[in-house]
Amino acid sequence: MSVDQLVKKIKEKGNPSVAGLDPRVEYVPEHIRERAYREYGKTLKGAAEAIWEFNKGLIDALYDVVPAVKPQSAFYEMYGLPGEEVLHRTIQYAKEKGLYVILDVKRNDIGSTAAAYSAAYLGRVDIDGAEAEPCPVDSITVNPYLGTDGIQPFVDDCIKYDKSIFVLARTSNPSSGELQMLYSGEKMIFEHVAALIDKWNEGTVGENGYGAVGAVVGATHADDAKIMRSILKRAYFLVPGYGAQGGGLEGVSRCFNDDGLGAIVNSSRGIMCAYKKSDRGGEAFADAARTEAVRMKEEITSIIK
Amino acid sequence: MSVDQLVKKIKEKGNPSVAGLDPRVEYVPEHIRERAYREYGKTLKGAAEAIWEFNKGLIDALYDVVPAVKPQSAFYEMYGLPGEEVLHRTIQYAKEKGLYVILDVKRNDIGSTAAAYSAAYLGRVDIDGAEAEPCPVDSITVNPYLGTDGIQPFVDDCIKYDKSIFVLARTSNPSSGELQMLYSGEKMIFEHVAALIDKWNEGTVGENGYGAVGAVVGATHADDAKIMRSILKRAYFLVPGYGAQGGGLEGVSRCFNDDGLGAIVNSSRGIMCAYKKSDRGGEAFADAARTEAVRMKEEITSIIK
Repeated sequence: MSVDQLVKKIKEKGNPSVAGLDPRVEYVPEHIRERAYREYGKTLKGAAEAIWEFNKGLIDALYDVVPAVKPQSAFYEMYGLPGEEVLHRTIQYAKEKGLYVILDVKRNDIGSTAAAYSAAYLGRVDIDGAEAEPCPVDSITVNPYLGTDGIQPFVDDCIKYDKSIFVLARTSNPSSGELQMLYSGEKMIFEHVAALIDKWNEGTVGENGYGAVGAVVGATHADDAKIMRSILKRAYFLVPGYGAQGGGLEGVSRCFNDDGLGAIVNSSRGIMCAYKKSDRGGEAFADAARTEAVRMKEEITSIIK
Repeated sequence: MSVDQLVKKIKEKGNPSVAGLDPRVEYVPEHIRERAYREYGKTLKGAAEAIWEFNKGLIDALYDVVPAVKPQSAFYEMYGLPGEEVLHRTIQYAKEKGLYVILDVKRNDIGSTAAAYSAAYLGRVDIDGAEAEPCPVDSITVNPYLGTDGIQPFVDDCIKYDKSIFVLARTSNPSSGELQMLYSGEKMIFEHVAALIDKWNEGTVGENGYGAVGAVVGATHADDAKIMRSILKRAYFLVPGYGAQGGGLEGVSRCFNDDGLGAIVNSSRGIMCAYKKSDRGGEAFADAARTEAVRMKEEITSIIK
């Protein structure tokens, strides 16, 4: 009923970071792409199979360094049905390797439809009395714009099936402030969202002191991270924007609590495309990713101690 | 670059309504379910194939009555990969029958990721120089919480590929007001969203006077629909909440402009499950759906004239 599974893995690895798997086909090393194109052509299937080989290599190189991976659904949906199939395969493989899987889908809808999304990723589906798990992951991201009845079905499944969610609050992108920083009364909209998250998180707090309902808080906004932390003491933060999006260590450090817990920092391109910055080229992509993941672990653990 | 394709089909059919295809397997008539279970078992595949037969029957019964269909992605994602495959098949079939396809996905993310979602549904994907269309539809729904850079990639593809989007503004669910009705200055958040939609819609207005960037406006809030209409004269409204969600005709009528255009009203369960209210049972589901779609057309056209 909480985020305890994630906290346990973070402690085991001594690493509060998550490797984003956002694999545009351009990120895949050339030798893998060429092999896939030879077999399947420059098609959606060819791109998806290239991505699968890449993801598998990344997971093999990272699974004993990072506690979690975060596939971004958009980069699989963009390769159509073959992309969806590779997303499912990637999730399955990551779970077999003991990784916590946070699927970044930012789903949102009215209550009955939110329940369907929740069944898809966190819960179970009833098929005339038979139960199935359509796409089981440990956690997903969700968007709060529809309010409580659009979130509660996810919270219910978190409690029932020991899952977690991360709710968008203060996102890392340049125009995030257009709505999120409008003042309503004394507080900005993202603070109102934080207050809702705190309410949704009540009753889900596990043995580590953290609940199942976390928040997405961009590393790019150090001051706002501090505000969020002050409102949400018992919520885990998923922190994008480190590295590639220019997120400073200042913002990252403010997402953590004094217990050294409370946040997990994402890096996608920084890890996946590390080989592009090395001399050894695409053949060594897995080594380069691992080296960068270890460097990131050391950097982040150094600032929270 | 506009919503002209939709307006053309609305005028041809004389019907500003859209049939929602939100097929939980419980909605599928028993004889279809039993046939699918015999072949595939009570599995995700069995449920998805039952849904496909149901959808095909609905589209065959409705395609000369309604101008558009709106599959809700959640109800396909909840049946896993087989569900996704049936969503693609349904979209393809609806397009072959000349229907405008609005895929209700409510996607949202930071700019570069929003571009990936847009490529998935509205645009094209580049695979090392080869072009592919992963899941081509005419229109999708999107969520505005991330601001302009999360929306602009969709707008760009609307212009480039003659597509449209509907942005969530004032949704139809009970707790929609928690964020959407907070006041910032003199205006509520959904009015601020409306002002953004008006800006995004600039430069996309087609020959019918409507742009590519529309709004989702729940029929359940008559007064707010009037406010939205006053801000967004050149935007099309997608209006959920008619019928099953208790949306009154008052709210629906206020979504239309004086030219009798400007809105398209959705009914999902009302049409799909019409057979449950008739004496003839599940075998006559297609006839019952058609009868209800014709009744709805007459009801809605009567209030806008």
